[in-house]
This record gives sequence, C-alpha cells and structure tokens, in this order.
Amino acid sequence: MQFFNNPDKKDWVKILERPTANMEDIEGKVIPVLNAVKQRGDEALREFALKFDNILLNDFEVPVEEINKSGEKLSDELKAAIQQAYKNISKFHATQVSSIVKVETMAGVSCWRKSVGIEKVGIYIPGGTAPLFSTVLMLGIPAQIAGCKEIILCSPSNHPAIYYAASLVGISRIFRIGGAQAIAAMAYGTESIPRVSKIFGPGNQFVTAAKQLVSKEGVAIDMPAGPSEVAVYADSSSNPAFIASDLLSQAEHGADSQVLLVSTDQSIIDRTKEELEIQLIELPRKEFASKSLENSKAIFVDNSATAIEILNEYAAEHLILASDDAEEIAESIINAGSIFIGHLTPESCGDYASGTNHTLPTNGYAKAYSGVSVDSFVRKITFQKITEKGLKNIGKTVIAMAEAESLQAHANAVKIRLEKK
Amino acid sequence: MQFFNNPDKKDWVKILERPTANMEDIEGKVIPVLNAVKQRGDEALREFALKFDNILLNDFEVPVEEINKSGEKLSDELKAAIQQAYKNISKFHATQVSSIVKVETMAGVSCWRKSVGIEKVGIYIPGGTAPLFSTVLMLGIPAQIAGCKEIILCSPSNHPAIYYAASLVGISRIFRIGGAQAIAAMAYGTESIPRVSKIFGPGNQFVTAAKQLVSKEGVAIDMPAGPSEVAVYADSSSNPAFIASDLLSQAEHGADSQVLLVSTDQSIIDRTKEELEIQLIELPRKEFASKSLENSKAIFVDNSATAIEILNEYAAEHLILASDDAEEIAESIINAGSIFIGHLTPESCGDYASGTNHTLPTNGYAKAYSGVSVDSFVRKITFQKITEKGLKNIGKTVIAMAEAESLQAHANAVKIRLEKK
Repeated sequence: MQFFNNPDKKDWVKILERPTANMEDIEGKVIPVLNAVKQRGDEALREFALKFDNILLNDFEVPVEEINKSGEKLSDELKAAIQQAYKNISKFHATQVSSIVKVETMAGVSCWRKSVGIEKVGIYIPGGTAPLFSTVLMLGIPAQIAGCKEIILCSPSNHPAIYYAASLVGISRIFRIGGAQAIAAMAYGTESIPRVSKIFGPGNQFVTAAKQLVSKEGVAIDMPAGPSEVAVYADSSSNPAFIASDLLSQAEHGADSQVLLVSTDQSIIDRTKEELEIQLIELPRKEFASKSLENSKAIFVDNSATAIEILNEYAAEHLILASDDAEEIAESIINAGSIFIGHLTPESCGDYASGTNHTLPTNGYAKAYSGVSVDSFVRKITFQKITEKGLKNIGKTVIAMAEAESLQAHANAVKIRLEKK
Repeated sequence: MQFFNNPDKKDWVKILERPTANMEDIEGKVIPVLNAVKQRGDEALREFALKFDNILLNDFEVPVEEINKSGEKLSDELKAAIQQAYKNISKFHATQVSSIVKVETMAGVSCWRKSVGIEKVGIYIPGGTAPLFSTVLMLGIPAQIAGCKEIILCSPSNHPAIYYAASLVGISRIFRIGGAQAIAAMAYGTESIPRVSKIFGPGNQFVTAAKQLVSKEGVAIDMPAGPSEVAVYADSSSNPAFIASDLLSQAEHGADSQVLLVSTDQSIIDRTKEELEIQLIELPRKEFASKSLENSKAIFVDNSATAIEILNEYAAEHLILASDDAEEIAESIINAGSIFIGHLTPESCGDYASGTNHTLPTNGYAKAYSGVSVDSFVRKITFQKITEKGLKNIGKTVIAMAEAESLQAHANAVKIRLEKK
C-alpha cells in the first residue's frame, strides 16, 4: 500500500489514476475471433472451444433437464441463500419500474413515456476461479422484471449454482461457450445461438474488448468495464478491523483490483495497515489480495470536506462510508456507483444480497454511468397525440421554428393538416 | 421510392436494411485530429479552425454579452416560439425526475436510489445548412432539470437562435469550435475548454466517429448515431397528403435520410406517391428530399398484424401511426424511438415542441436504446444501510454465497462484524 499525507490538490489526478490496460493489443487478437464467428457461425465456435478451452462440443445448448435438476446438486444452505438473495434483489429492483405519466403540455397535446423490455438480451458469465452465480441474479432479475422476452446466458462454466440461479430468473436458454467468441455469437447470431440486442456481464480483457467492438456494430452493452474497486472513507469513529476486511474483500478479486482508503485520522490508517497484515495471511486468495494491495493507496487528509472532494474526484465503483456521520457525508457524494453507509454495511452485502445491483461503473465511469438496474433492460418509448385543438395551439410554434431552421417540409406537415382539417 | 407487395418474411431484413457508411475510412481521418487536440490543446484547435472552417480564432469562447443580447436579433415570433417550445419540453421532461424510494428488503437492511446530475456535460451543435437551435433545447432542458452543474456548448455556428436557446437552458459557456476537434476538446479538455464527462449532440460522420472513439476512453456519449428516419403506418383511414408531408419532412434532412411506408391499403400507397410528387416540387430542399426518396421504401401488406411485425423489425426512430386505430396499434409496438399517434400528430411537432425529446435512436438502435431524457443526464447512485439486526438477518446469506463463490474475504467482512459487535 502506498501512503499519502495531505497531498497537493494538483497531484490528486496522478495519485488517483487507475492502471490502464493496453486494449489495442487485445483488440488485435479479438477481431479475428469476431470475424470468424460472424462468417462461419457454429463451426468457428467449435474450433475456438477446442483451441482455447480444450473441449470438444457438439451441442452448445445445456439441456433443460440439466438446468431443472441443478438445485439437487446444491446444499440446502446455499439454495436457501440464493433464494433469499433472489427475494431481496427482486424487492429492490421492483421499485425501479416506472409507470406511465401522461402530460398535457398544451391543451390537446398529450405526451407520455412507456417502458418496454428489450426483446432479446444476452448475459455472459465467465468461468475462471469463482463461479459467479450472484451475477446471474444481478443481471437476470432486472431482465425478468423489465419483461424481456428472451434472456439467454452464455458461460463456459457448468457450475450447478449458475444453472440454479438462471432457472430462478427465467433464463430461457443456456449455452456453454465462453470468451470473445461467446460475445460474437450473441452479437451476430449463429445457427445455434440467437442474436440479441444487448449484452451484459463481466469477463476478462478479451471479453471486455469483444463487447466494446461489437457495440460499434449496433449491439448495445451494459457499460464499459474495468477492474473492480472500493474506496473507504474513515474517521476517528471507524473500526480498523472492519475496514481491513472490506479492503481485502475487494483485493481478493484479482491482482488488478483497486483499493483506496481516505481517512481524516492517521491512527486509523496505521491500525488498518496492521489489521490488513493479520487478516491477509489467512485468506485462500492471499496472493491476489497482496498483489492488489501493492497498487493500493491510503490518503490522510485534514478534514472531511477534502476527503469528500477526493472521493468525488475518484468516483469509486463501491464507496464505503465507515463513520458515525456516514449519512451526512453521503449527501455530498456526487460520483459513485453504490454507497455503503455506516460501520455495519460491508460491500459484500451489496455484492450478494442487500438488494442493490453489483454491476457497477468502475474506472471512474461513475462520473457518467449508473450501475445496472431495470432501466438497463428497457427502452423508454415516448408517445404524443395531438387533437385538432392541440394542433391549432402548437402549430404556430412548430411552423416558426421549422422555418427558422430552413426546414420547410417540417412546417408544411403542420400547415397541410391545419388547412385540410 | 421502391415498392414491395406482401414481401416474404425471409426478405424483410434485406428490405429493411439501412445503407451503411464505411466508418473505418473516417476513423482513419479522425484519429490524428483527436491525438493532436489531446497533445497540443488550444494550439491544435486553432490550426483545425483555420484548416477546416477557414476561420482565424484567438478566443474560442463566445462573450457573455453576445449570448445575452442574442434575443434582440430574433423576431418576436421566433422568440415566442422558442419560449413556447421551452415550456412544453420542460413540462414533459420534469415528469422524468425520479424520487427516492427507500425499501427495506429485510428487517434492518435498507436500500434506495438517488438521481444525481452528471457534473459536467458537453453539447455539440453542428453548423451546416440548418441552425439546430431546437437541439439546444432538446439537450439543454433535460441537463438543466437533471441539475448538471456545468453545461458547455460547442458549435461552429454563431446563429443567434442557438445562443438564445442556450441562454434559456442555463448553458454556462459556449465555444465556437466544430467538427471532430470540438469533440476531442470536450473529451480531453484543453487550456480553454473544460473536460466533460458526457458528450451529447448530432453531427456529421466525422463528429459521429469522434464521439465513438472518445467513448472508448471513458467519456460517455448520448448514443450511437445514424441518419434520421421515419416510418409511417397507414391503412384505408389515412390521408395521403398528410403522409406525403411527413415523409418529405424526414426526407428533407439529407440525402441519406430514411423513409419507410407500410400500408394495409394499396390505394393509399399509390395516392401518397402522387402527393409526394406534388408537394416535392415546392420544397427549397427538394434535392435532398428526392435523393432520400430514391432509397426509400413502401410496403403493402395484407393485414395490420404483419405491418406491426415489420415495423417492430425495422425499429424506427420516429413512427407515425396514421390510422383511426392508432392507439390500439401502438399497444403492439415494442421497438421505436418516439411514436406519433393519429392523423393530426406529424413528426415535426415532436421535432420542435410537443414536449418529447427529438434525440432518438436511429439505425434500428431502438431495439436496445432509448431516446435522450432526464435519465441521460443523471447517474442513479444506489445506497444501502444495514443495522445490527439487519446484519444478523442477512449475514448467513452473504456468507454462504461468498464461500460458494470461493471469496473468503467477502464472507469475513460480515463475520468480523457479527463477532465484534
């Protein structure tokens, strides 16, 4: 961990900088994969499965019976946990459904907006060291609430918890493919895999590059991705052991995970450092965590106002406000993905089960992007309906503006209706 | 116009295909411009202004007095029209502000979402044949309602109506620069131009390519862009003169504008064709319009169900339902940007003043994207607060899931709090 004491404001940007990956090299490797799937469909998918994942696949689709029976392979405890998380996440996301509000902007001119679920969406769940069934819930639940008609899932993992979570959220089809080729399959469609309109989900740099590349061809993606990160705000009321546990729960994700501690109390920083060492040694993923901590930063500042300014500049994916006055501090935060208030709200609760979504903007994107929500799975289509009286009321305005923009046909569309009616 | 009679479903995709621009050539020209602005800031902007726009600029910023006095240069009629549009658009967009709803997902576990305006946003308004002051309203009003703190505008145009609209929506600074270099300036910041977190607005292919390129570097953009388009649904109740006026008001935008007519009545198609010829000859922009009509399509189908299916496949930016049963038809539309209901609701009313936003997804993007709204200018930050009781309730679930995902430190963050509290 690197330590800073009241750094100059001009140095903040440098201190808060995230390490950047060179995406150009990766794009160079991903483009041929995308093109192969676009041109040769399933055949290319089979080749890549053999080449990259060393599996010989005839059928990509997971049989329905395997999905239906997945619950039998889980402990009762885990099944109950997934069900409880499903309940909490559903309850919170259900409040994100917007109702139709009709507005008469002028007499006879009515406008409204209707949320309509994206018809076909695709979810990607990586394989790798951890079976991310929680992400199946986090992406599947809002899709289900949004009313998406076809929700498909691609994953190289065949972990029963992934299938079980998928069955809860109404995922209609699961395909056992991974990597950039899975993204290509969902973006372009193949003989076996249906094309979708929007692709969600985490992945390695190849998957991230593939999502970014296909998004230039008209397929939408959830958001740009980067390594996961947490920032913790601490003061003299904070508990160093709790803070250390939060920093480690982020750091264990991977060597590139980002951890930032901003404290108005130097002794809390010192004691957190000690706690980190104690807690680290017992972790199964301590190699990842200690690598990640090397790149991480602890900043001491004189006062909470400066701390807030730094945190807003950083724009953390997860922000833990570990102080007695957390709710007050939260009022001044304008850039963050998700905020965890007080000493007893660790990030891991939001990662799994508090109810909020864990797919959040990393890499400072929280300055412009929101996390995934029901909004991410709908289009808000606008409507307008104008009566004869309405057209009389609004006509003059439209004609004057259209003519001032030199768009005569726009004006004519109103004039011809006013004349002939 | 090309005519189709009950085309085979397998041919729909081909018939509904939009002409695609080769973006790679354009990217090759835009990348050096972006890099120059990134590296040399204002100096590069001055060079490009001289090279591309043939103007020698010392100061890019438009003096406040020029903005404040812009209203004096407009006719009273136009000023009144802009004010009326401002009023209608504000009224509709004000309903898009979401309030905070706190949910207790389990006893002691509270979650909520708060909309926070993006701090710094940039709006681009192109120069060219039409001064798009209406777009200043369409982008500025939701930014103003969202509570964005700094709204800047870049435009090569110095049309007073643009400045007047800007003054209404609270745009703080206007810079007289255009093209890809203006997008670069807002994305990276220069000595004169502040860096923003999200860039909005239309433009030519260079601007579009620039927006797409900077979006890979962490700056958000409103949405991918393509030529404007309208689809009209007609049946025996439709008025061919009205339909022709709508098709022309889209076609006059540019030679690449897209126009589609789907009708369950062949005679309406024939009479619309006649009306197009009559109305076209009087248009100042008839060259654009007739070019655009050449690539446009009219499809006759037997029944409204097929028409709806085709329209959902096309996913039009603007969809006019020019029939007596328009509201009923609208219920079945799942893919569209904005829908215009009935015989007396021309697209041009939505373009200027009905209240809905005219920045909408083109090119079939309506399958996955919404038009611009207040949502586009906020981040919805999530919050959670857990009490001691709440942590006891949720702890078991989080620990079971974290351990099943092999993330021990995630589990520890809960355990340590349960033990020490």
